[in-house]
Amino acid sequence: MIQISRGLENVIIKETSLTYIDGEKGVLRYRGYNIEDLAENCEYEEVVHLMLFGELPNAKQLQEVKEKINQSYEVPLEVLEAMQKLPRDADPISLMETAFSIMSIWGKRINRLTALDIIAKASTIVSNVYRIKEGLKTKIPEPSESYAKSFLEATFFKKPSADEVKAMNTALILYTDHEVPASTTAALVSASTLTDIYSCITSALSALKGPLHGGAAEEAFKQFVEIGSPDNVEKWFEENIIKSKKRLMGFGHRVYKTYDPRAKIFKKMAYSLAKEESKKYLQIAEKLEELGVRYFSQKKIYPNTDFYSGIVFYSLGFPIYMFTSLFALSRILGWLAHVIEYLENQPAIIWPRALYVGPEKRDFIPLSQRG
Amino acid sequence: MIQISRGLENVIIKETSLTYIDGEKGVLRYRGYNIEDLAENCEYEEVVHLMLFGELPNAKQLQEVKEKINQSYEVPLEVLEAMQKLPRDADPISLMETAFSIMSIWGKRINRLTALDIIAKASTIVSNVYRIKEGLKTKIPEPSESYAKSFLEATFFKKPSADEVKAMNTALILYTDHEVPASTTAALVSASTLTDIYSCITSALSALKGPLHGGAAEEAFKQFVEIGSPDNVEKWFEENIIKSKKRLMGFGHRVYKTYDPRAKIFKKMAYSLAKEESKKYLQIAEKLEELGVRYFSQKKIYPNTDFYSGIVFYSLGFPIYMFTSLFALSRILGWLAHVIEYLENQPAIIWPRALYVGPEKRDFIPLSQRG
Repeated sequence: MIQISRGLENVIIKETSLTYIDGEKGVLRYRGYNIEDLAENCEYEEVVHLMLFGELPNAKQLQEVKEKINQSYEVPLEVLEAMQKLPRDADPISLMETAFSIMSIWGKRINRLTALDIIAKASTIVSNVYRIKEGLKTKIPEPSESYAKSFLEATFFKKPSADEVKAMNTALILYTDHEVPASTTAALVSASTLTDIYSCITSALSALKGPLHGGAAEEAFKQFVEIGSPDNVEKWFEENIIKSKKRLMGFGHRVYKTYDPRAKIFKKMAYSLAKEESKKYLQIAEKLEELGVRYFSQKKIYPNTDFYSGIVFYSLGFPIYMFTSLFALSRILGWLAHVIEYLENQPAIIWPRALYVGPEKRDFIPLSQRG
Repeated sequence: MIQISRGLENVIIKETSLTYIDGEKGVLRYRGYNIEDLAENCEYEEVVHLMLFGELPNAKQLQEVKEKINQSYEVPLEVLEAMQKLPRDADPISLMETAFSIMSIWGKRINRLTALDIIAKASTIVSNVYRIKEGLKTKIPEPSESYAKSFLEATFFKKPSADEVKAMNTALILYTDHEVPASTTAALVSASTLTDIYSCITSALSALKGPLHGGAAEEAFKQFVEIGSPDNVEKWFEENIIKSKKRLMGFGHRVYKTYDPRAKIFKKMAYSLAKEESKKYLQIAEKLEELGVRYFSQKKIYPNTDFYSGIVFYSLGFPIYMFTSLFALSRILGWLAHVIEYLENQPAIIWPRALYVGPEKRDFIPLSQRG
């Protein structure tokens, strides 16, 4: 009782049937299915159904999920208007926070139907974060046969290739959930007061925005840009990582003590997508991975999901500043699934204690007598 | 390790020198000073200094705090503009979330100086939540000899009386901090990822918005309105509380097992301020308190801080819908002080675990073969 749990490490905040992680073996499963199987074989909407309803959908159920999402891309006029008025150099996650804060005005209860509604609207918000920052006209995603396709089409205003849709799909699946890191915890804390569903997402985004949490894919990719050429990797590694003891971004994870299974899938995707410039970054990344593994694997530090995801996003046409928003676009499903699971199973307000270590009772001294 | 902490009850998330609560004896202290002493003798800015810097200020230090606040009431143009564009019936806390989300675009680091800046800007935001909802022109608080005075003057666009300033002051002090309830926890989770200071506040507001957390003063006051007349209290109590087992709002507290010390101070203030209509509500409240204490005190359920605070806010001229925003205006100091204390002492990312209770590994079944 009197022990403090620094960072709540090893404190169990809830039970879950959503995500199983074996950090020693590098296993990640959603509701019992290996992430490799889902990433290889599923559309994102199948994973939406799996996470929210507990099972992979049959064809009819999948169609229902898609229809509900297709009907829900519209957002209140005020949302895109407000986003457009903000400075173009605004942080993308701040833009998302603003959009969800505004939507909380029409605050809806947390349940599976509003969750599908939010998943659709998140696509609209993230598309337009890009469009607004690029100075383009806002655009509502149009219904199509898949969420990933509607999203890419609205964002770039052109038909994506089948490979691109598949890659976007897989990226959405890979970032969907990862137990209860800070952003999910923030969503749970808010949800536990029975706040509205948009405010839960705002809370999660606030936490995701922190450089210790959501920004790693951007930081990893910026390394590749800084290195600039495959020939420069060794020199850069020697100077920055070995001599200056800088942190190798995209390496290491609090839970995984081996390869992050998502990293392997992102790497494979990066290969199948890479063209010209991104090919160069891929070569840099590969050399960097080799050196990093040689240098760090004894400490059980390996590439994590953010190491190669940036190259995939970049190959799809996204600028670096969008990587964290793309993480958020996918993770929203995990936040929603955890929040719904929490409220259904253990609806207690989250209210820890603090251990008082301050001064004993002090006598009040009036202002005029203070030194 | 395998035990789940429902709602993190009895989990200690941090050490603190800020607030000491003895729930059995009804004691509340900020940094060692009894809440009664501070409420009776201090200006809010003295408590700002106490919470952020550790000691009650001398005259010079107090002046410095006031100057910094007086210089910081301006908010970026975009903030008030965006708030004005939103529907007038918007939830006040959603308006605040939106304002802080927008300000997060200019994301500042968390420290004592930015904390003072936010305290000033929160006054501007909350003033204009009222003004916008009432269809009035927006207004930036003007520098004056006190935070409470500047706030009331901007809100109502008229000079407040000395009694009104004193009451606002005291209300701000009473709601300043109360250890780590859900809103403070949400702020801590966000802060632990090193997010910006505005996003921490947004996160806290998201949690405060939930009806289990921030809305109690409004609910308590709505009871008085529903009861309508002192003669109706007994009948209402009999029907609603005894027969229908409804919850008596403004009664009971997870920590206090006796009178909440803040309730007593709010009651005294309510007496000294009440005019005409609020006098009627005060009479209703008193009779309701008497019945409530008679009926519930064996279960250690007593009036809490929200029972009389609404009458004070109402006497100051605030409509019911503003009560939670006024709570937030004051509590922002507590959120900031906890966040600063956490980052200085225990800067670990808050990342609990979930206990997996879901299905074992399942073989993947392709869509076409699902029943």
